Amino acid sequence: MTHGNHGCCMKIELINTGSELMLGRVLNSHQQWICRQMADHGYTVDRQVGISDDGPVIQGAVREGLSRADLVITTGGLGPTSDDLTRDLIAQLLGRKLREDEAVLRNIESFFQSRSRPMPPSTRVQAMVPEGAVVLANAHGTAPGLAIRLDPRPGARIPQWLILLPGPPRELHPMFRQQVLPLVEQEYPRETPFVCRTLKTTGLGESVVEERIAAPLKPWVDGGMELGYCARTGEVDVRLVSRHPEGVALVAAAEKVCRGLLEKHLYGVDDETLEGTILRLLSSMGRTVGVAESCTGGFIANRITNVPGASRVFRGGVLAYDNEIKERLLNVPGDTLRAHGAVSEPTARAMAEGARRLLGVDYAISVTGIAGPTGGTPEKPVGTVFIGLAAPEGTRVVRQINPFDRETFKFITSQQSLNLLRRELVGEGG
Amino acid sequence: MTHGNHGCCMKIELINTGSELMLGRVLNSHQQWICRQMADHGYTVDRQVGISDDGPVIQGAVREGLSRADLVITTGGLGPTSDDLTRDLIAQLLGRKLREDEAVLRNIESFFQSRSRPMPPSTRVQAMVPEGAVVLANAHGTAPGLAIRLDPRPGARIPQWLILLPGPPRELHPMFRQQVLPLVEQEYPRETPFVCRTLKTTGLGESVVEERIAAPLKPWVDGGMELGYCARTGEVDVRLVSRHPEGVALVAAAEKVCRGLLEKHLYGVDDETLEGTILRLLSSMGRTVGVAESCTGGFIANRITNVPGASRVFRGGVLAYDNEIKERLLNVPGDTLRAHGAVSEPTARAMAEGARRLLGVDYAISVTGIAGPTGGTPEKPVGTVFIGLAAPEGTRVVRQINPFDRETFKFITSQQSLNLLRRELVGEGG
Repeated sequence: MTHGNHGCCMKIELINTGSELMLGRVLNSHQQWICRQMADHGYTVDRQVGISDDGPVIQGAVREGLSRADLVITTGGLGPTSDDLTRDLIAQLLGRKLREDEAVLRNIESFFQSRSRPMPPSTRVQAMVPEGAVVLANAHGTAPGLAIRLDPRPGARIPQWLILLPGPPRELHPMFRQQVLPLVEQEYPRETPFVCRTLKTTGLGESVVEERIAAPLKPWVDGGMELGYCARTGEVDVRLVSRHPEGVALVAAAEKVCRGLLEKHLYGVDDETLEGTILRLLSSMGRTVGVAESCTGGFIANRITNVPGASRVFRGGVLAYDNEIKERLLNVPGDTLRAHGAVSEPTARAMAEGARRLLGVDYAISVTGIAGPTGGTPEKPVGTVFIGLAAPEGTRVVRQINPFDRETFKFITSQQSLNLLRRELVGEGG
Repeated sequence: MTHGNHGCCMKIELINTGSELMLGRVLNSHQQWICRQMADHGYTVDRQVGISDDGPVIQGAVREGLSRADLVITTGGLGPTSDDLTRDLIAQLLGRKLREDEAVLRNIESFFQSRSRPMPPSTRVQAMVPEGAVVLANAHGTAPGLAIRLDPRPGARIPQWLILLPGPPRELHPMFRQQVLPLVEQEYPRETPFVCRTLKTTGLGESVVEERIAAPLKPWVDGGMELGYCARTGEVDVRLVSRHPEGVALVAAAEKVCRGLLEKHLYGVDDETLEGTILRLLSSMGRTVGVAESCTGGFIANRITNVPGASRVFRGGVLAYDNEIKERLLNVPGDTLRAHGAVSEPTARAMAEGARRLLGVDYAISVTGIAGPTGGTPEKPVGTVFIGLAAPEGTRVVRQINPFDRETFKFITSQQSLNLLRRELVGEGG
């Protein structure tokens, strides 16, 4: 792992404070968000630390962070309540006096005035600023961020900064984008160019992806390109990073190699999702889609309708959990159900074709399977699923075995279903 | 903040490894999940550290963790690819040889056999186990967990354990519940009793919940009970913790007070979900449910069908995104759609009643609204939603305004819909 931070020297540490984090009551979304912002701008957070709202623990973590890193960012603990300790603790740790900042105080006062609410006396503490700190204005709350420039670490030729940010995401996000990132880019200019491309795949395990592309990409990696894999449920990301002056061309060439090797499994790049890709393809073709879901229980339709503008291409669906609904609404012949069972190729085929007619759509996805944990047989174990796709060109059915817990089963089945449709739309079907 | 760990002495540190974490590619759900599991069993994680897949960094973090904590848990880095380094690095750090474990190897082989897939040679490395380590079997993947007992820290009278867990949640969760928690409870027995009860509410803000119960619960808090609030999207948890010898009775009495004050907003306790509660109620009544979803696009049905055994009570649904489908499948009169619009009380009513008849269910939920980001009007702004419930006793429709991003809109609307049904089932409706 090489780092893009100011050559090889710059280190970044993120400290998230909050007892709710350590009790597992809330998800630490700041870690992902700040790390992602940094990475997309060519900086890497080296270490992230989560601790509770406890004075000595916070001071100890910041002291350690400053001994290791050039840039230390904390989140949380700047509010007005008794467990908001960060401001005082840091001033004490750095031996700096706190003084009331007039501009911050006016901002707090006008925050309450504009909401026609009295200013609680306790909020005044948020106007206290350590000597020499840069105030990061808070456009969405009362606690400003604070950026404190310190002497460089022993032997370092770059400045050291300690940046304190408020906890609420709606306050932190704009402050980070508009004030912290510019400060970071000014104080720690990148020494090399930075190009980052993420290839998104589905349907292959991480080790298979690596087996396919690692050797062919060796010349790029030997030339300094970083090649990373990230496996999530039902998908694997391939991340290509170059800091070479011709990084754009190098990464584009490496991407082309990957496309040839990963083929139908590569569904998008960077922030694209499978459902977003499908919506874009269908929109550009002026075509529509619908679903007939049994065991996935609406999950596929839910993913499609998460994309803004889904109503342009998604007309609707039938959730045919019960066989009687498969028969009556989707016109699956009773004989088919009796002869082959609900979880079968002929049933999936009839469901897709029935949904295509019933909903009046160009493409209909059908799913029938055994989500488990019970209901399996030796021939059709738990996880067996038949996925149908009725298209203008005809109907196809694939069989998969996804022996996972219910939610994972649904997600992986939806990946397979959506990728089947995507391949049909880009002419890779059949 | 008090701690329940083995008196005041025991320290727990969690180390999450993964370059994808530090690049912000994935959310660190392990922090919340493991911290929550620990907290609910009377243990507090003192520090959580996130680092990338980098040899010296991982070794350094584990070394530091072992210098501070009695129990150190790592996640990630046990897979088969070249950036899965944890197993080797830890063996090296501890000076223990790796040997191939026959049972683990057989488990890996049978994992691939049961999926009719060839075993990639690279996966064999996952059968390597450091000398003296306890193998934590992986029922859902190929990489086992490893628990290594070490000498107590200097001066400590309790053992030190280092536990390595695989990264994928579907592998980690059952391993943690079934193997790690029992080991922790055996090796670090709690010195005081521990009773923890979480009351789950929906439909009230955090400050309103606090206003209702804080004063009435003061006698319990003065007597040592911990009272905590945690607000998440669409719900607020109330957490009652007692370490008193009669904690069970004390917490039960406090819960009873809360039930009286929170009434219809309290939908469950501990790990109960709204959808799980509904499934249990419907099952016990021998009744069935179906949905007619427009703007929620299958999300409500998806939640219901996430619960194992959903097929006992859920028969199916119609996703009526397009008005023509509302009219043709659900028999919403065209006049109603033209006179009142798709997002209206009469349409929601007709959808619920149409779905109840069409699906042959006892209860039908209907939803029609404007998820946004576009489509709002002055009278019906973005976020407007009508929720219908057709029941044997009659039909009701409520109007809500949920002006959030699409996914939050869907979640909050599903909370309101499911709680409407839950209240009907427990006789709180009307």
